[in-house]
Amino acid sequence: MRIISETSSDGVREQLFTLGDIPGVLWTPDGATGIRPLIVMGHGGGQHKKAPGILTRAHRFVRECGFAVVAADVPGHGDRPVDPEYDRINTENQARVAAGEDLAALIAEFQAVVARQTVPEWQAVLDAVQSLEHVGTGPAGYWGVSLGCGLGVPFVAAEPRIRAAVLGLGGAAASAEPAARITVPVEFLMQWDDERVPRTQGLALFDALGSAEKTLHANPGKHADILPAYELDSTVHFFTRHLT
Amino acid sequence: MRIISETSSDGVREQLFTLGDIPGVLWTPDGATGIRPLIVMGHGGGQHKKAPGILTRAHRFVRECGFAVVAADVPGHGDRPVDPEYDRINTENQARVAAGEDLAALIAEFQAVVARQTVPEWQAVLDAVQSLEHVGTGPAGYWGVSLGCGLGVPFVAAEPRIRAAVLGLGGAAASAEPAARITVPVEFLMQWDDERVPRTQGLALFDALGSAEKTLHANPGKHADILPAYELDSTVHFFTRHLT
Repeated sequence: MRIISETSSDGVREQLFTLGDIPGVLWTPDGATGIRPLIVMGHGGGQHKKAPGILTRAHRFVRECGFAVVAADVPGHGDRPVDPEYDRINTENQARVAAGEDLAALIAEFQAVVARQTVPEWQAVLDAVQSLEHVGTGPAGYWGVSLGCGLGVPFVAAEPRIRAAVLGLGGAAASAEPAARITVPVEFLMQWDDERVPRTQGLALFDALGSAEKTLHANPGKHADILPAYELDSTVHFFTRHLT
Repeated sequence: MRIISETSSDGVREQLFTLGDIPGVLWTPDGATGIRPLIVMGHGGGQHKKAPGILTRAHRFVRECGFAVVAADVPGHGDRPVDPEYDRINTENQARVAAGEDLAALIAEFQAVVARQTVPEWQAVLDAVQSLEHVGTGPAGYWGVSLGCGLGVPFVAAEPRIRAAVLGLGGAAASAEPAARITVPVEFLMQWDDERVPRTQGLALFDALGSAEKTLHANPGKHADILPAYELDSTVHFFTRHLT
């Protein structure tokens, strides 16, 4: 793990790093030392590790809860080069959708391929970040919606260090099988008017989660609409409940 | 309005009253004077104005938020006599269900009949309670699930003084029509394994709500299972957001 740069704003220390060829960012409270809870965040499709929705939440988790937060660019996103293999699949899929194939099934297939790479990548990031003195091996959580849900569900299912997860804006076609293996508490977010993930798909993914404690929050709005402010408050309460 | 008795515990003043033949209870902070937000609470079927689920919530609203809370016995419940007309309908309905008729439709029909009585009763209770010096005409909210939702939806739809409502454990068959006339913010609670209200019915009632701001919270559990503690926290935040 190589630290590339370090800045600070509003009490939040931001360290850009690379781990092999994975670009990542770690946020911690200014001047923090010792063990603290860590949130791994997965960004959405076409976004990156410092997208506004990630940054806003990361700053709140750090400032209000004293947590560490880490996010990495997904292959083909942010500071990573275009991946020729994923690019080829995407181009093929566009042709298959144009030819009438089901988009949801193609997205599911594609996310499963990418997850085979990101699950071990994020596990390596977790190893590296938890070995830092100002993070340590405290309890960990995961936050990710949309692509961050498609890749997050197999990650949370595979990674026993994750003790609680906020997921959402994803469907059962992509994620029901690994979702059934999740047993930690989940807060699951739906947009009631999601034009990309059919409502029945979102409800079926919530239903598929194996967790004894899971809570569904649905609000009016389309896929990419900004979630109501009270949902971020709820997420802060959720992680505080389960990681402290 | 006639005050029958007054007690106090844990900083909460409890006044039992009758308004005509409606028995009710008002909770306010000990020693409170002046205007404050008021929550009207509707109890569940077979329950009464001081059922444990009502009492627990009322005490939190009073102690944590400084609100006033009022609940009245629904006809045929608590301190009210058996209503011969409702009793006759219930007996008839039991026979109709035994003969194979749809229970949900019969419940819907019955609740609509009762609501024609309870809506004006609760409006009269609101008038009376808000005329008291230690309540006053502040913003008002409504809380009710199950029967409290079936009777609450037409009440909230009819009563412009209600500015925010927590509803749930009810279905569209009973309540979709008045629900469409509700425009205030709603927090809607579902039990994901509700054996009395089919899941599709609950989702359809949430969908039918006319409110621009509405949020669905679903958790594993059967109809009468106790809601998770974090839902009560969420309800406290919801009313605080909208009534203060």
